[in-house]
Amino acid sequence: MKILISNDDGISSPGLNALAIELKKLGDVTIVAPVTEQSAVGHAITMKYPLRITDFYKNGDFFGYAVDGTPADCIKIGIRNIMHEPPDIVVSGINLGSNTAINIIYSGTVSAAREAAIMDVPSIAVSVTSHEAKDFSFAAKFSSRLAQMVAKNKMPAGTLLNVNIPDLPEDQISGVLLTQQGKSKWDDVYEERKDPYGQKYYWLTGNLVQHDTTLETDQFAIRKNYVSVTPIHFDLTDYKTYDTMKSWQLENLFKQKS
Amino acid sequence: MKILISNDDGISSPGLNALAIELKKLGDVTIVAPVTEQSAVGHAITMKYPLRITDFYKNGDFFGYAVDGTPADCIKIGIRNIMHEPPDIVVSGINLGSNTAINIIYSGTVSAAREAAIMDVPSIAVSVTSHEAKDFSFAAKFSSRLAQMVAKNKMPAGTLLNVNIPDLPEDQISGVLLTQQGKSKWDDVYEERKDPYGQKYYWLTGNLVQHDTTLETDQFAIRKNYVSVTPIHFDLTDYKTYDTMKSWQLENLFKQKS
Repeated sequence: MKILISNDDGISSPGLNALAIELKKLGDVTIVAPVTEQSAVGHAITMKYPLRITDFYKNGDFFGYAVDGTPADCIKIGIRNIMHEPPDIVVSGINLGSNTAINIIYSGTVSAAREAAIMDVPSIAVSVTSHEAKDFSFAAKFSSRLAQMVAKNKMPAGTLLNVNIPDLPEDQISGVLLTQQGKSKWDDVYEERKDPYGQKYYWLTGNLVQHDTTLETDQFAIRKNYVSVTPIHFDLTDYKTYDTMKSWQLENLFKQKS
Repeated sequence: MKILISNDDGISSPGLNALAIELKKLGDVTIVAPVTEQSAVGHAITMKYPLRITDFYKNGDFFGYAVDGTPADCIKIGIRNIMHEPPDIVVSGINLGSNTAINIIYSGTVSAAREAAIMDVPSIAVSVTSHEAKDFSFAAKFSSRLAQMVAKNKMPAGTLLNVNIPDLPEDQISGVLLTQQGKSKWDDVYEERKDPYGQKYYWLTGNLVQHDTTLETDQFAIRKNYVSVTPIHFDLTDYKTYDTMKSWQLENLFKQKS
């Protein structure tokens, strides 16, 4: 099994290291990850600037390829110019902090896996629910088991799995649930501050407002200490509104001369 | 009508200027746009650094607010800290270059409108099909007519309209079509080059491979010189695969101890 690993926390992240150690038991692992932390970069790709690829060493041994770009860049250049052929699976993570509900939209971890899905490679994004997680052993083992299940069941083209794992010892985890993206979203607050020169600046903070109340949603599942597995895709068409809008008579916009 | 305008080409873009001139005929326009070009940033938001807001002047007159962040940042901070209340509509654009098929995923223009939809504000992303477009008059007029139609018909919460307009004189445009996101995607190529110091670097290029062959898709519609209007949303759940995966028995991943 040829496995490509990436993340958005950067190539020196302990979550990526734990994932690599576990997945090396399954097959050939190639690591291509951002030089620096790329949280909340969404599905950004680098077009206006070139990318560089640097060999990254850990304890004196070659560990992987560091790219001075985004998570999506790492998947593209990793497959095209480092591996030169698609891997059997891409695993992105293990991210510090959950990627559920609206956070999926902003997540670099998910976007790396999504870029793989765009390239027709089965992929999984894995996050643990705490930014302070220290023990990734269960999350890494779960990722490995899921990777094997994906290989066995075949993933439909254009789909990836978004996995969120409670930051708890295995015996305190309630189980695993197949879920949908939740509706919880941020109540944003920009903190207004002044720099040493008296100039205003604004820092994004806020609270995630819980709109999810059933175990069918990723956000509620992790609150109840379940592992959440959500299939997501990149067809953004809102088919329900598409049907509704047939009655809008858009053609009137064109005939109406101003 | 209170209107918030943003884009990803930056506050000095002629496409944004043309849109502002036209929409000022409809109501009160507030402009909040990135200081610099932010193409292909996707739905990135700025969390690790603060944002600054600068008054931007054009020909000696106040024009709008420049934010040193991403298109999604502009919508968040524009609504929270500049307007202090939601506008009636957000219009993002007019972007230089089409945002159809897979490009929707990477687009900053679309992400600005999507951020508005997340904040429950009706929104429209507008792009013209050429990077060299000079005449935005039809695209701006069409955006204004569509904004009025959206206000009249009410947009379902969580939906935005992604609009692509051929870079042609109005009398050469075939008409307007309600479309779905196409399946065309990039065959990426990273050009390998050497810097003046002999070090390798890689620049993303590639060709958009046309997988769309019907006028129901955004990509084919613009190739046939139609204006394309696609309703999109941010529920990324792949419901078809969700149903398929019920037979995967994910619970076995948890029982299976390693």
